[in-house]
Amino acid sequence: MPVISGVKLAPAAAGIRYRDRPDVLLAVMDKGTAVAGVFTRSKCPSAPVEWCRAKLGRGRARALVVNSGNANAFTGRTGRQATVLTADIAAKAVGCSVGEVFLASTGVIGEPLDATKFNGVLGDLAQRATPGEWMDAARAIMTTDTFAKVATSAVKLGRATVTINGMAKGAGMIAPDMATMLAFMFTDAPITAGALQSLLKNGVEDTFNAVTIDGDTSTSDTLLAFATGAAAENGAPKISRASDHRLKAFAAAFRAVLGNLAEQVARDGEGARKLVEIIVEGATTKASARRIAMSVANSPLVKTAIAGEDANWGRVVMAVGKAGEPANRDKLSIAFNGIRVASRGARDPSYDEAQVSSAMKNPKIQIRIALGLGKGRDRVLTCDLTKEYVAINGDYRS
Amino acid sequence: MPVISGVKLAPAAAGIRYRDRPDVLLAVMDKGTAVAGVFTRSKCPSAPVEWCRAKLGRGRARALVVNSGNANAFTGRTGRQATVLTADIAAKAVGCSVGEVFLASTGVIGEPLDATKFNGVLGDLAQRATPGEWMDAARAIMTTDTFAKVATSAVKLGRATVTINGMAKGAGMIAPDMATMLAFMFTDAPITAGALQSLLKNGVEDTFNAVTIDGDTSTSDTLLAFATGAAAENGAPKISRASDHRLKAFAAAFRAVLGNLAEQVARDGEGARKLVEIIVEGATTKASARRIAMSVANSPLVKTAIAGEDANWGRVVMAVGKAGEPANRDKLSIAFNGIRVASRGARDPSYDEAQVSSAMKNPKIQIRIALGLGKGRDRVLTCDLTKEYVAINGDYRS
Repeated sequence: MPVISGVKLAPAAAGIRYRDRPDVLLAVMDKGTAVAGVFTRSKCPSAPVEWCRAKLGRGRARALVVNSGNANAFTGRTGRQATVLTADIAAKAVGCSVGEVFLASTGVIGEPLDATKFNGVLGDLAQRATPGEWMDAARAIMTTDTFAKVATSAVKLGRATVTINGMAKGAGMIAPDMATMLAFMFTDAPITAGALQSLLKNGVEDTFNAVTIDGDTSTSDTLLAFATGAAAENGAPKISRASDHRLKAFAAAFRAVLGNLAEQVARDGEGARKLVEIIVEGATTKASARRIAMSVANSPLVKTAIAGEDANWGRVVMAVGKAGEPANRDKLSIAFNGIRVASRGARDPSYDEAQVSSAMKNPKIQIRIALGLGKGRDRVLTCDLTKEYVAINGDYRS
Repeated sequence: MPVISGVKLAPAAAGIRYRDRPDVLLAVMDKGTAVAGVFTRSKCPSAPVEWCRAKLGRGRARALVVNSGNANAFTGRTGRQATVLTADIAAKAVGCSVGEVFLASTGVIGEPLDATKFNGVLGDLAQRATPGEWMDAARAIMTTDTFAKVATSAVKLGRATVTINGMAKGAGMIAPDMATMLAFMFTDAPITAGALQSLLKNGVEDTFNAVTIDGDTSTSDTLLAFATGAAAENGAPKISRASDHRLKAFAAAFRAVLGNLAEQVARDGEGARKLVEIIVEGATTKASARRIAMSVANSPLVKTAIAGEDANWGRVVMAVGKAGEPANRDKLSIAFNGIRVASRGARDPSYDEAQVSSAMKNPKIQIRIALGLGKGRDRVLTCDLTKEYVAINGDYRS
């Protein structure tokens, strides 16, 4: 991962919950860094989510503190006090105001977070933060993830080449209205907070919001974007509107990094062995296509069939039917990995079970559903549902 | 199970899909039997569902043919032809019109149903149908069910005692908008088709429509009710309006049989080891309480935690938060089997993990969620999500 001018990272093992593995990340940004964010739509958000929402209005960030193992969610007044204390410690460590500190916590819900543990740690981390620790940083924010998720892109902005780095974590409790639990984007492009917020809001719609693992929306879902503006020194123009035509290539690259991270999250779904792409075509609208794709992606029966490498298109029909969206059974066609299994409301006449069964052994499964009603199209990513998902989530807390 | 005057049953092993086990049921009703029905709201209903909907208008039934192993769903024109052929064979066997024949099929979706297999079978069954075969009948309609589901009630209607018998099947692909795949109610009470339809529609709201196993709504969900009227001979008054005050005790008994069957369906959820009752209180409305209860009942993370005997109320908070209904985190209280674990937005101060862990070993788990907002209350039944659910549904078709 390349360096982002104006960003330094310091992961650490602070013993918040895990032993002998990094569980805290401090990111320190240069003065003048703009910040944008989107969050869970849960009615019971975590204390850090409420903290970030309240601080986002000023649009300035100097520090990001992420801990894994404890979500500081449903922790009442204690939880709010923990965010205040953490921000205070971070502000002193970095030398900024508390309103420039952003917080994200992930892990168990309902257990008080002992923020005093940050007391010695953050000052030390601020001292030894360096620009190059991207992989270690991505590892420090993991919980049940099996691999660290990072993505990067370099793109022209005016005469300058600017860089976009992203990292994400999240493998379960993942559903739209922020699909990932935590993701962070960093760039040296000089973009105002308002323009960055527009970019982010547009960018998540077909990336993080089009991923679902289990239909369960976290209380802690947080996606923050930071723009240090350091590339202005190299001649990058200052951008204050997302619609600025000079931002076009950057916006595409930004969205590509979001898409890359979102796909990694789906691929690493808890217990998942297969990445599943659901494409719905011919719906009455894109929104209708999205709801049908989500109905298929969240169906336990579809997901267990894929785990069993069974092209059970009957269950796909069931999931289309239950979505409540316009659908005509007798116009419906379904293909698995390019092989059409159902056509116009019945089994495809040329259906070859052996050929389809072989295709189902792939680690990536694409289900293409043609409704034959209109031009609405959408795409959603998910994974299969295995016994390992149940095992991971049946003993997680104990 | 008691006899219902005017109803004869004949289960058989017709080799539709299973070998050496009953997979077809013929029920023969006397002339004058009234019929009512509610069906899946799937946009891709099975051919038998479409058949029944079309025939329900006349309100008369003489025969019910149920087969398990093949759902005759998503089978296109062949599927419609199969329903016509089956009804024709049944009408000849029973000596009635095809419009008085009702059909229900359950099993694999998308495979053509060879209705010619009914040719020899139904005539033979009509000959040997008897009033007493209720348990064998309930077994003949099973697919992945682990036990046959029947319930009965006797109740006064005027001077006469009338009987209500019910049977149900369904253990997966079960969600509201008809929770069960197939259920049949029979009574000798003299009730018109219109009054029976009202009873049925009101009765399912808090019984079958308040059960979910996996959130997956079947294409085949069918609940039919038959009233032979034979009890008129014993002095039961003829009832033509559901609001008739003489029907009050009957309506309560009818609803109790529906509730009993619905609970059996939840208890026999695929792979389930625990029956889970979700009670939501203090919501703004009953409908809001229902949506929150369903969000909890369908959450894979809540269900896997219960499978792991873990009182993970953090996941309950998550599921309340994602429901999109009015909820205030800081007023929320949660109890497992009567033990309060969370109170007013944080862990209950008197929370005793050992006590709660012990309670979680029960085969029945009650989660009571108090929102503290209004008077809306509702109750939903579900089960836990185990590795066996994944195993059952990962190899079902192959």
